[in-house]
Amino acid sequence: MKILVLNGPNLNLLGQREPGIYGQTTLAEIEKALQQKAKGQGNELELRQSNIEGELVGWIQEARGSFDVIILNAAAYTHTSVALRDAIAASGVPTIEVHLSNIHAREEFRHKSLIAGVCVGQIAGFGANSYLLALDAAVNIKAKK
Amino acid sequence: MKILVLNGPNLNLLGQREPGIYGQTTLAEIEKALQQKAKGQGNELELRQSNIEGELVGWIQEARGSFDVIILNAAAYTHTSVALRDAIAASGVPTIEVHLSNIHAREEFRHKSLIAGVCVGQIAGFGANSYLLALDAAVNIKAKK
Amino acid sequence: MKILVLNGPNLNLLGQREPGIYGQTTLAEIEKALQQKAKGQGNELELRQSNIEGELVGWIQEARGSFDVIILNAAAYTHTSVALRDAIAASGVPTIEVHLSNIHAREEFRHKSLIAGVCVGQIAGFGANSYLLALDAAVNIKAKK
Amino acid sequence: MKILVLNGPNLNLLGQREPGIYGQTTLAEIEKALQQKAKGQGNELELRQSNIEGELVGWIQEARGSFDVIILNAAAYTHTSVALRDAIAASGVPTIEVHLSNIHAREEFRHKSLIAGVCVGQIAGFGANSYLLALDAAVNIKAKK
Amino acid sequence: MKILVLNGPNLNLLGQREPGIYGQTTLAEIEKALQQKAKGQGNELELRQSNIEGELVGWIQEARGSFDVIILNAAAYTHTSVALRDAIAASGVPTIEVHLSNIHAREEFRHKSLIAGVCVGQIAGFGANSYLLALDAAVNIKAKK
Amino acid sequence: MKILVLNGPNLNLLGQREPGIYGQTTLAEIEKALQQKAKGQGNELELRQSNIEGELVGWIQEARGSFDVIILNAAAYTHTSVALRDAIAASGVPTIEVHLSNIHAREEFRHKSLIAGVCVGQIAGFGANSYLLALDAAVNIKAKK
Amino acid sequence: MKILVLNGPNLNLLGQREPGIYGQTTLAEIEKALQQKAKGQGNELELRQSNIEGELVGWIQEARGSFDVIILNAAAYTHTSVALRDAIAASGVPTIEVHLSNIHAREEFRHKSLIAGVCVGQIAGFGANSYLLALDAAVNIKAKK
Amino acid sequence: MKILVLNGPNLNLLGQREPGIYGQTTLAEIEKALQQKAKGQGNELELRQSNIEGELVGWIQEARGSFDVIILNAAAYTHTSVALRDAIAASGVPTIEVHLSNIHAREEFRHKSLIAGVCVGQIAGFGANSYLLALDAAVNIKAKK
Amino acid sequence: MKILVLNGPNLNLLGQREPGIYGQTTLAEIEKALQQKAKGQGNELELRQSNIEGELVGWIQEARGSFDVIILNAAAYTHTSVALRDAIAASGVPTIEVHLSNIHAREEFRHKSLIAGVCVGQIAGFGANSYLLALDAAVNIKAKK
Amino acid sequence: MKILVLNGPNLNLLGQREPGIYGQTTLAEIEKALQQKAKGQGNELELRQSNIEGELVGWIQEARGSFDVIILNAAAYTHTSVALRDAIAASGVPTIEVHLSNIHAREEFRHKSLIAGVCVGQIAGFGANSYLLALDAAVNIKAKK
Amino acid sequence: MKILVLNGPNLNLLGQREPGIYGQTTLAEIEKALQQKAKGQGNELELRQSNIEGELVGWIQEARGSFDVIILNAAAYTHTSVALRDAIAASGVPTIEVHLSNIHAREEFRHKSLIAGVCVGQIAGFGANSYLLALDAAVNIKAKK
Amino acid sequence: MKILVLNGPNLNLLGQREPGIYGQTTLAEIEKALQQKAKGQGNELELRQSNIEGELVGWIQEARGSFDVIILNAAAYTHTSVALRDAIAASGVPTIEVHLSNIHAREEFRHKSLIAGVCVGQIAGFGANSYLLALDAAVNIKAKK
Repeated sequence: MKILVLNGPNLNLLGQREPGIYGQTTLAEIEKALQQKAKGQGNELELRQSNIEGELVGWIQEARGSFDVIILNAAAYTHTSVALRDAIAASGVPTIEVHLSNIHAREEFRHKSLIAGVCVGQIAGFGANSYLLALDAAVNIKAKK
Repeated sequence: MKILVLNGPNLNLLGQREPGIYGQTTLAEIEKALQQKAKGQGNELELRQSNIEGELVGWIQEARGSFDVIILNAAAYTHTSVALRDAIAASGVPTIEVHLSNIHAREEFRHKSLIAGVCVGQIAGFGANSYLLALDAAVNIKAKK
Repeated sequence: MKILVLNGPNLNLLGQREPGIYGQTTLAEIEKALQQKAKGQGNELELRQSNIEGELVGWIQEARGSFDVIILNAAAYTHTSVALRDAIAASGVPTIEVHLSNIHAREEFRHKSLIAGVCVGQIAGFGANSYLLALDAAVNIKAKK
Repeated sequence: MKILVLNGPNLNLLGQREPGIYGQTTLAEIEKALQQKAKGQGNELELRQSNIEGELVGWIQEARGSFDVIILNAAAYTHTSVALRDAIAASGVPTIEVHLSNIHAREEFRHKSLIAGVCVGQIAGFGANSYLLALDAAVNIKAKK
Repeated sequence: MKILVLNGPNLNLLGQREPGIYGQTTLAEIEKALQQKAKGQGNELELRQSNIEGELVGWIQEARGSFDVIILNAAAYTHTSVALRDAIAASGVPTIEVHLSNIHAREEFRHKSLIAGVCVGQIAGFGANSYLLALDAAVNIKAKK
Repeated sequence: MKILVLNGPNLNLLGQREPGIYGQTTLAEIEKALQQKAKGQGNELELRQSNIEGELVGWIQEARGSFDVIILNAAAYTHTSVALRDAIAASGVPTIEVHLSNIHAREEFRHKSLIAGVCVGQIAGFGANSYLLALDAAVNIKAKK
Repeated sequence: MKILVLNGPNLNLLGQREPGIYGQTTLAEIEKALQQKAKGQGNELELRQSNIEGELVGWIQEARGSFDVIILNAAAYTHTSVALRDAIAASGVPTIEVHLSNIHAREEFRHKSLIAGVCVGQIAGFGANSYLLALDAAVNIKAKK
Repeated sequence: MKILVLNGPNLNLLGQREPGIYGQTTLAEIEKALQQKAKGQGNELELRQSNIEGELVGWIQEARGSFDVIILNAAAYTHTSVALRDAIAASGVPTIEVHLSNIHAREEFRHKSLIAGVCVGQIAGFGANSYLLALDAAVNIKAKK
Repeated sequence: MKILVLNGPNLNLLGQREPGIYGQTTLAEIEKALQQKAKGQGNELELRQSNIEGELVGWIQEARGSFDVIILNAAAYTHTSVALRDAIAASGVPTIEVHLSNIHAREEFRHKSLIAGVCVGQIAGFGANSYLLALDAAVNIKAKK
Repeated sequence: MKILVLNGPNLNLLGQREPGIYGQTTLAEIEKALQQKAKGQGNELELRQSNIEGELVGWIQEARGSFDVIILNAAAYTHTSVALRDAIAASGVPTIEVHLSNIHAREEFRHKSLIAGVCVGQIAGFGANSYLLALDAAVNIKAKK
Repeated sequence: MKILVLNGPNLNLLGQREPGIYGQTTLAEIEKALQQKAKGQGNELELRQSNIEGELVGWIQEARGSFDVIILNAAAYTHTSVALRDAIAASGVPTIEVHLSNIHAREEFRHKSLIAGVCVGQIAGFGANSYLLALDAAVNIKAKK
Repeated sequence: MKILVLNGPNLNLLGQREPGIYGQTTLAEIEKALQQKAKGQGNELELRQSNIEGELVGWIQEARGSFDVIILNAAAYTHTSVALRDAIAASGVPTIEVHLSNIHAREEFRHKSLIAGVCVGQIAGFGANSYLLALDAAVNIKAKK
């Protein structure tokens, strides 16, 4: 099983960026933890980050046929991107929406996810652990098929 | 560590009720899987269900001092109950919001959670597995303190 | 054919409560008229009332397998209860929405019914007679199947 | 007692038009059933249909003094016509709002009735039977006066 | 100078229709008073009424070249007709909006006039006198050109 | 009969201020025309202007017992002043709302009048002539009593 | 004179629950202060608390004939319960709305009271003292009759 | 192949009516161009215009079985008519929505089309050419079946 | 302890102005009752009224250092004045919001208080007694410090 | 005449992506058909696709002086991009908005086009044929100048 | 060149009033800094402050012909005064909108400026320096003419 | 002191693009004027422009530690980009929002800035001079620290 972990804008700053909200773990540390856990499961995992909406769109498209599940933290684009939504629907790869913070407990404009409508489910608010939970969820989704 | 798993209205019908949306696992089966996993972790777990908003309020209040974490699937009350929100804030016990279906991908009136603002995080859309993921999340929250 | 007539909050006060809006017939008198009519049709009928949302949820759940049709006057809960909506969908029993007053001709907040989306139809504005018309409708629904 | 049954736009197509929503009974068959029932009650009944808002307005106006009750299925004009509302108020003839489908369970724009505010009550969702129930309601309204 | 006075739906019932709101003067009496006043001014005046939106549209179109000013009481169509708005803009004849009642002091849905945007001005709330004031306004508009 | 003509903020600039919208007649010229017409009717008339909301409130209050009708061009305060609304209701003096421009054909925020709900009627869009028409309306209102 | 003091969900936790918002006085202490003050006035007072909406509805209904005034702190149900509103209207007992915190200065969803429309008045923001002020208000209301 | 071209209110004034917005071509000239093009394609075409909503409804109904495609410029009724929407759905004839001006670039109230939900597609903003493009589209739709 | 009682627009008319809503007590009578009660408490009290928003703003500013509590009935300005809100925040003097009528039970536009966000609490609906209750509340606020 | 055909995000997946909505023709096939038709007209045509909003912005800017018309299918960016709108306005090149599906008949968030306000017209709902119709429209626009 | 600096309600308290938001500089100090800078530029400057909306309206009117530019900090009236907007439009004097705090980063109701639509530009968020920047902007505006 | 001046989409076209709105100065000319002024102040300044949201995000991130202040004209992304907002918050570099035109006086959708909530202040409407004013503001911000 192959899993693609995609990260949207500003997530490259994790650990430095507003640690009160997003925690002190860096994206590299998250990747390391994910790789370790994936390996333990016998799965392959690839993590990418981009600040560019269109690049994320492209990666989601390419996942078709190459990956079994996408774990997507679209960050700010969660609330503004119809293009990501359409990409997920187009790719047909089951996608899990992940957020470090509990977006439903923050500013009003972060309550609405434009991509939720085409995702399998959402995990939000558990910091770096949100990704690891999503990895478990991914395995489970795959198992059910 | 002691964990309280609370279930709101109509969840007693799980397995029979609209299986296309909510899956075929019964609440008893979910409880069994949770107990097994909790035991494996060396934790204690208690699961309750009620159709009555005020009874759920009461259970959340009583968790204060007796439980370390609440896993709450408030079902329909997620979208209409300020009383549950106030109870969670009053109890001070860290609470994880759980949903079987991806509420953000369903009818507009299910997108808004009145309790999210006082919960640690939200896990939605993974069927019965949402509960098991929440159990992992609970352990992690506890570990961080 | 077995029919369950459920009544929501404050309907126990019928006859006394704002007779200008709700009429002077008591719930007992309505039940009597319904029983008489049901008997004439060769049907069995049971009427219950509760002020507690969760109790109504429970009765709707139990109707599954025991009753052929539910006639439901959810009163105030019509406008605030997603739990009742979910219970109706879960029970799978055809449900007729009934109101004594014409809710669409009253305050704005009474125009919206949260349960209408899962009911067969709605009869509103004919006072106690709304129930009797619903009984006819119930027979007809049954006959069509 | 004389009853006027008015039908708005596209109801002349009943039976052919989207039978999944509106049923397979034609307007002629509905009229026949209504006439039969009215005769049994010793009442006189007249049924008309028009696609033209202004013609319906005119018929409602003329009902004043000639008919005791109006049964009105305004169809699409239910949601867009203030003129029908004003005509009903002007005529002073008690009017029962009727719909074949349960308008509250369909598209958002069909939930709002502009005429409900001046009608006695509403019966919606019982197919052709909605009309027959309205006839019973009409007799009851008359009886109360 | 030639003036066309157009009246929308239900205004044929004036005097009978809800006299508490619309007064006791009939449309015939209003016409008589208008004719008398117009004659005194040396003007020609024609009054028409229709319940049909499209017929009013046609009359407004025909006014082009035949009339100098239109006095329009669009009644219920004031709030729902874009067709009347377009007809006024298309005809190019200066149009004065008239209402018997003060529409801004009634139900919310009567506060918005769809035709106001293409009318010279609005006179509302003076009963039958609204028309006579509009006649004065019409003369003044003509004089200014 | 005594008539009070009140003018709100910026109307002292009439004739200079945006003549494309408000015309070229000054407030003094309007007063002159009104005085002349009032004299011809055998009525007494007083015109005042203030830029201060509270001063207008005071004048409306004082009109009680001293004036038979108020003609009020509240200008910008039309859209923002609940205080003027309350003053009109408190004074009990019949009040006619007047506007030089057709407020319903201008910016959205000028469509809503907070004072309309307590005024007899509204005359808008006829430039300086709006005042003269209101004087006629005032006489007519008085005559009806 | 007999006074019923009703308390909604989570008020049983007063003193412990978010003391920064709700103060440090317990419900028992409030009751004691109220009883003392009522006794001084020669009045009888009874205080009850429930987390269950329907139980509160029942108590309000029973107040009819047994109590002269209701002092109601509906807490979270203030913002979500039409059933309480209907119960107050049905009981006919003058009801005073009380809140510990100033609900109008908190989250947007606490600004709207669904029960205010049928209450005599509202006292909010004075902590435990809100109840004592309401007791004075109750005496005054009674005196006026 | 037979094509029905329907035109709504005020389109009979084309060429005269606000040529800055709608162009200088008359409806007769549009018909001529359409007939010529249809003949070249070996198709039959009929063009009608009405200011009356109900008449347009009737023509759409009659198209069933007589025409293969409808090209509909509903003009003002585009934004206000649910009756036209229902007629299109009822007729089952593929319908192409056409507008002379780009309705999405005009006043806010012209951005919403009530009929779009049941039309095949929309062509707007190309003046008289919108009709000719629609004719090409019609042929293509037919070809695909 | 020194208390400033401020009254907004139209409150000088109390007793005469719509007594059905505001009661028959004049402002002078209210002042007398307040002075008497304040004296009994050993407090000093000053009452002022103005129809001018800016004058009220000035008085609130001056209260800083001169008064311990402000009791403010902002009347119509409650719903429209950000300037009063800013003045209260700027003065830093604890302010109690008072209303004669229950503003939450009246027109929609009276439900929103722009000043509530910076006031200690609100007392509304008890007629002249609202002021006396506020005086008690003021003493209590002072005592707590 | 030179025509630039621009395609937004996910259109590179055409033919594979949700063929039920977008059809089975690939973008390469559309380009081929367009090139063939353009050649037949004696025109030059260039087609580009990008998933990156800013790249589309750049291409629109560069069209200034190099192309006579832009045919733009902005896909998801239609509903979220003010940058594209500004680019079109800045370039000054006449732009035709094209959509494969009828966006007005899909989810609510696809009904609003942010770019329509600066485009000549819109063609939506005809699948791959939408592009070919736009090519005809482009030629016609050019011819008119 | 003559510059008028106008200050709205509560700005007389600057330096004392919520220094966390508005800074510690007093209005007198701001005036001194402005005078010094204006003198350095060879310009004349006058600064006024009022809490009364109507007085500010009057000053803006009088600026016509006496001043070249207005620098306006309307404070709370920014969000509620149409009268100030109309005064600026009427005076015709170029006006620069100034705010000490960044109004767009504060409460929602401070995001909307009613006067922005008729001002040259806006400078907000730089504390006392906002005024000095506006003085530079004023000189530049003058220079461009 | 080092200052980064960032420019969003379409600003590379300045001088050519809609000069009526944006002026005739090119971005190169603005840069020249800024460099000259910065040099005079003894500061270092760098100006960049991109049409790609993600590239702007990246530059803002990199400013951390390299620049003291950011002057940002986000152009169209001002109204649609949460990613820029998050980048500013993450970088922690004080940012000044700049606009050539007065965005608050243009189309409704330009009134809302998504980035304002995390910027120091806003300067809008002074054409190229907005940038120079921002440079002064930047120096002042730095000086205060």
